[in-house]
Parts: sequence; structure tokens; C-alpha cells
Amino acid sequence: MKVQLLLTGNELMSGDIIDSNSAMMAQQLKEIGVEVKRKVTVSDDIDLLIAEITQISQQADVLIINGGLGPTTDDMTAEALAKAAEVPLCEHPSALAHITNWCEKKGAPLNGPNRKQSILPKGSNVVANSVGSAVGFKLTINDCDIYCTPGVPSELKVMLTNEVIPALTTQLPENLACHTSRFQVFGYGESGLQKLLAETFPDWPQTLEIGYRASMPLLELKITSRTVADMALKTHWVAKIKACLGEHIVSTTSNHPESLAATLINLLKSNNKTITTAESCTGGLISSLLTKEAGASNVFNAGFVTYSNDIKSTVLNVTKSTLDNHGAVSKETVIAMANGALNKSDSDYVIAVSGIAGPDGGTTEKPVGSFWIAWGSKSKIYTKYLQIKSSRWHFQLSVATIGLDLIRREIINTDEVPRYFIERKHK
Amino acid sequence: MKVQLLLTGNELMSGDIIDSNSAMMAQQLKEIGVEVKRKVTVSDDIDLLIAEITQISQQADVLIINGGLGPTTDDMTAEALAKAAEVPLCEHPSALAHITNWCEKKGAPLNGPNRKQSILPKGSNVVANSVGSAVGFKLTINDCDIYCTPGVPSELKVMLTNEVIPALTTQLPENLACHTSRFQVFGYGESGLQKLLAETFPDWPQTLEIGYRASMPLLELKITSRTVADMALKTHWVAKIKACLGEHIVSTTSNHPESLAATLINLLKSNNKTITTAESCTGGLISSLLTKEAGASNVFNAGFVTYSNDIKSTVLNVTKSTLDNHGAVSKETVIAMANGALNKSDSDYVIAVSGIAGPDGGTTEKPVGSFWIAWGSKSKIYTKYLQIKSSRWHFQLSVATIGLDLIRREIINTDEVPRYFIERKHK
Repeated sequence: MKVQLLLTGNELMSGDIIDSNSAMMAQQLKEIGVEVKRKVTVSDDIDLLIAEITQISQQADVLIINGGLGPTTDDMTAEALAKAAEVPLCEHPSALAHITNWCEKKGAPLNGPNRKQSILPKGSNVVANSVGSAVGFKLTINDCDIYCTPGVPSELKVMLTNEVIPALTTQLPENLACHTSRFQVFGYGESGLQKLLAETFPDWPQTLEIGYRASMPLLELKITSRTVADMALKTHWVAKIKACLGEHIVSTTSNHPESLAATLINLLKSNNKTITTAESCTGGLISSLLTKEAGASNVFNAGFVTYSNDIKSTVLNVTKSTLDNHGAVSKETVIAMANGALNKSDSDYVIAVSGIAGPDGGTTEKPVGSFWIAWGSKSKIYTKYLQIKSSRWHFQLSVATIGLDLIRREIINTDEVPRYFIERKHK
Repeated sequence: MKVQLLLTGNELMSGDIIDSNSAMMAQQLKEIGVEVKRKVTVSDDIDLLIAEITQISQQADVLIINGGLGPTTDDMTAEALAKAAEVPLCEHPSALAHITNWCEKKGAPLNGPNRKQSILPKGSNVVANSVGSAVGFKLTINDCDIYCTPGVPSELKVMLTNEVIPALTTQLPENLACHTSRFQVFGYGESGLQKLLAETFPDWPQTLEIGYRASMPLLELKITSRTVADMALKTHWVAKIKACLGEHIVSTTSNHPESLAATLINLLKSNNKTITTAESCTGGLISSLLTKEAGASNVFNAGFVTYSNDIKSTVLNVTKSTLDNHGAVSKETVIAMANGALNKSDSDYVIAVSGIAGPDGGTTEKPVGSFWIAWGSKSKIYTKYLQIKSSRWHFQLSVATIGLDLIRREIINTDEVPRYFIERKHK
């Protein structure tokens, strides 16, 4: 099935917004085994639109047009499609019913611009939009099925999932049954994971596709099978991947991947435990990542951002002799910070970090990117020295994520050595 | 000048990466007064590439091709361009010199794949790449100047700025001199600012273009003039805009817009002052925004994330009677938090916030989105109650940014009432 995309919008051409809709379409199409090889983007220009629709309808089996369904005069997809199909525009009863209903729900009168959204090329079928005012519509020209979809990403997503993808699926060969398993991985970069899998599984079956998607600080790993026959094969190899990656797989939720902080909060909650933070180089980022998640108040009472040496002493009781003898970036200091935070907050678990975020402040002995981390509970505090050479923000995000991951590993009680202990320079 | 873009890459078509390069190209072209009306994206397929190059060269004055210059076999821009131009491929001496030099600098041997990058269509001119291995090149087909540029965003940016844009500028009418003034604005949404400017300046000159770019929580406002004659006009109207927006303009730096936190840190530093934070509903985000910026340690020593009532008492000395009588989300509590943080940290300025981030925890009296904020110094603490109905994360980011903005306004000693005091429900 040859599918092409046509995107319309001045804001797409000017660079004022970045097109993420076509990535969404490509990903949903890929999951049913359809690859998009060409997409065209044009400004809101009726002649350009007509020319593209005409040309693509002669090349492709399916054309998905995105954008230009709104109520204003620069929305001209319906008009362009009618001209390309050489049919008149007319008011479509079920589109009008949808818009009338939508306006009633909003308590707004049906105005002229809204009513325009029910004027469609004659012969179109309405494609339902359950979340917005603009209906989608479908018309066939030159044996090419043309689907017109809304530019608002949330509306497009629902229309693709509920309408367009199921309609296309019925036209695909019967034995095709695309299925994807997804894993959120922490501790491997894309090239490192690629190399590991290539070396570990030289006999990886060609029909199972491996995909990666970076979503800092996690990496999403996707395994896709494309036929009914391959589904059992996928189950078999997914089990091997799981065994290989162990606890580097942070979550396996499919459609709405959880953040590591959310995973940790759920773990703490189900164990009826609390956590506190003592942050120097991350400056509040660890507590911010935790409290960004709803439900954080169940497991988090207090965070201490002790940026200066004085504050480490006055707030967390790190002794002056510890700071003088070992420095702020030292094993002794992070242990004292961790104990101080545990005592002050009466929490069960703690993460304490102190390091050189840069770009300045590094020395030969303690270069930019080096940090000490302490983590654990009142019964046992662990420590580690690591280096992460990167930008200030990437350093902070990596250190914070390592902290969250180490408490996760402590709670699930694993002996596995995390990859970042092996790859990074450590003491 | 008719300019079209052609982007190539399987990862662009699959949705694995989102195309930000074409937005970069459109923005740089817009600044010299050139609008892009059409762009085509194709997978790494030699026949598709040849067909697109041929078609576009017949329609456009300039074609910028992006991607496909790398060393691997799926990089086929040079080959496609040669076939479209019906010229042979041959090793280009200055391209080879560039790659040899690049490998030497890296201390790597010149290998086959790298050497491939010097094989260009006969008759091409090299376009310099000062930051990567792949040279760009230019060839004219059907009177259309075709520029081939690298897909790596940092390399593309330098090549556009230093090579392509200057080359195109020489071909534009002489009186054209595009110039843009940019402002980072806080306190207005895009539609609110659009309405304000339309109402305040009904006689706004048609030749000055107003543009907006949302970069949460700030909004960038751009005023562009397109001719030498209009530059004086722009100066005149930019002064009017500045007078209209007052201190809602957070910064006017052009190319690398500063964050509000960075602006505040510079202000504090030049006044030799420090700041501390006492955060409940923002959970460490304010201190994280401050410490994300290099140089934060000059002005920030301590932040207190006091999420529970107990911790507000034990860490910041908020009395039990204050919490019992007024609740955690109250004027009295945020004042006590502010004083506690000032005393514990011995800082000059303080931001203290307590509110209902949601999605749960709201009541009729204190709904989700309501918060109290206290800010100021030991000599004077101000307070305000506001409501921001939004997602948890947007609420946290807005509250944190309002806190930073209020201290900025305190330091520059303005009487102006910020827009968010007027628009939001307040006490």
C-alpha cells in the first residue's frame, strides 16, 4: 500500500511550529506495517494544494492530508479537494449535525465560520472527530483514497487511532498483524544498546524489527513483528531481550510510557515508604522530578538544596571538619548529607549528591562532571564516585536520574550492577 | 525568489526523528525576506530523489537539499543530483582536502566511507562546512541553484549562516535589508498579546511584520522590517511596543534568548545579592530553574522543599498554630515559610509558595490551581493569592516563573502591575 502525506499550513512553512504530526502518522502507520516514503508540505495556497492533491492521487493508493480543516478563511482543504476532484462543495448533513452538537456542548452559538466546517466536497464520507469541531472526511480520486484530517495534534491522534488506521487495516493482507513491544531502558545510550544487542544476538531473526527512540534520560526500545506467524517468535525473543537487559528495563508500559520518577513513586507507595533528597550539584532537580508526578505527596515530605558549604553544615549538620578535610565533593560529605536529610525528614530512603556541574569550578582532582552520590536508608548508606562529561543540564539530568534509579534498584533488591557503574570512570 | 526545500532520510519518514531543520531553514530565509512555500520529504530512495530534484528544478529558483551527505551507503544526495543533472560523479580536490584535513585533526585515518564524501557531481562548487566531515555543494540545473547541505543540525546551522544565506542575499534586490527585533515577554499569552497590540496600535504600519513564538513560559515577540527605508520606521514602532509592554519584556537579547532565571541571576549578581526558596507546590522547580544556569552559586546558597506540614514546621519554623488556624495554603503560612528560609539561609531575597498543584487535593475554598506566594526581603515581604487552572506541570512552571519574575520586578524597583495579577483571580 503506497501512502503519502500532504501537510498544509503557513506556520509549518515559516518554521514557527515544528511538524510533529507527520511523525505521529508515520509511527501509527508503521505499526500496521505501512511505510511512508514521501510527504509534501505546502503553505495555505489553494493552487499549490490542488496541484499536490492531483499529482499525489496519481501516484499513491492512499493520501492523508493534514491541516486546513478549521473555520477560518486560510483553511482551504475542502475547497482544494473539491476542485481537484472536480465536484461541487455542499453542506454535509452529518457534518452539520456534528458541529451543531459540538457548539451546543460548548454553550456557544453556531456561527458562520463554524458552519463552514460542514461544507465538504460532494460525495465525501465524514470521518468522525470525537474531540474537536472539525470533522474529517474521505473522498476517492484516481483510485486514491484521500483522508482529510485536522491539524490539532490531539484531534489527529484520536482520528488516526479510531478511524483512519482501522480503515486502512481492513485493506491490508489478512495475515498481517503488526505488534510492537516497548521497553523504557535506563543506563544505555542508543549506540551502546545497538552494539550490545548485535553482539549478544548474532542470530536475531530478520523479520523482527528493532527500533530505538531517545527520550532523555530514558531510551525506548521497540520490537515489532509484522505477521501472525511472527508473534510467537517475538514473544520468544522479547524474553531473551528482557533477560539480557535485566533491571535496565525501567518500565514496559506500552502507550503512555512512565517516567522513572513515576515508577519509583509507585514502588515507594506500594511498599509504604518515603524518600528525601539532599542536593548540591543537581540544585533541586531530583525533588522537582519527583514532585512533577501526581501522588508525590504520598512518598515525599522534604527536599534540601544545600548549594553552599555553610548551608550543608547549618541545614544538614555536615561538620566543618568533614568539609575542611575532604571537601564538598567527597564520599564523607555526601554520607553526612544523606544522614542529615534522613534525620531532618524522618524519611525511609535518601538520595544525596555533590559534584561539579560546570562549566567552571573543576580541578585536576575533581574535574567538571565528577560527582559523589550517597543513597540508601538509615540501615545502610551506599556511595559511588562517577564522572559524566557533558553539558551542565545533561550532567544534572543524568545525576538526578541515576539517583532515582539507584533507589529503585535498592527497593526491588537487585544485585545487578548498573551499566553506568561500568561505563563511567568510578572509584 | 522561489525557494523550495527537499529533505531526505528514512528516520524523517519513519517518525523516529522530528524534522527541526526545515524550521531552521525557513526562519533564516524569512529573516532575509524569503518565504518558503513548499517542501518535500522523501526516504533514502535514489529514484524518488532524482524525480523530486528534476521536478523542483523546473519550478523553483533555489532548491536547498538537506541530508544524505554522510559516508554510508544510504547517503545518496550526490549520486541523485548527478543523475538529475546528467553529469558524472568525480572526486573533487577541495572536498578531498577538507576531508583529509578533518580526519587529520581527529587523528583518524582517511577511510573509504569518508573518501566517498569527496565524490561530487562534476561541475559542483564546494560549500564550506567548518564543523563536520561532509562538505556541502552547489550545482545549477534548469536555472535552479541547488544547495546540498548536511543533515546534522549544528553543521546545517553554520553552513546556512556562513555560506548559503549570504550567497542568496547577494541575489536579492539591493534595497532589501531584513532586520528583526526580538523580545522575550512574560505575562501575556499569544492571543492576549495579539489582541493588546491590535487594540493599542490600530495604525500599525503594514510593512512591519509582527511574529510570535511560544517558548513556555516566555513568549518571543518579533518585529521585522524588510527594507532600508523601513528600518527607521521599525525603530520608531519598537520604542512604542517597549513603552506599551514595559517590564513585561524580560529580555531583548537577540540570538540566544536568556531564560528568566538567567536574567534574574545576572541582576542579583550585579547587585551583589543572594536569593533563597521555600517551595511546597513547586517541589524544587524554582531552585532547579535557578541552578540550571551556570553561575547560580554566586547568588544561591540554599533551597527548602517543604512538602508536608510537619517539614514546614521543623525545617522552616512555621508554627503549628499558623498551619492549624490558616492551613498550608494561606497567606500566613507562606509569610512564615519566607521568613524561615531567609533566617536559615541568611539570603537577601526569598520566594515562598504553597498551593494545590492537582490533579487531586482541591476543595471548594482552595481549588486545584490556587496558590499563595510570598516574596521580598527581610525588610519587606509581599504576598498574593492567584489561581492558574492548568495541568500539574504547567501550573508548577507558571508558579515558579511568577516567583522569579516578582523578584526581578522587586530588584528593578518597578511599580508596574504585572499582567498576571490582573488576569488571574486574586485576593
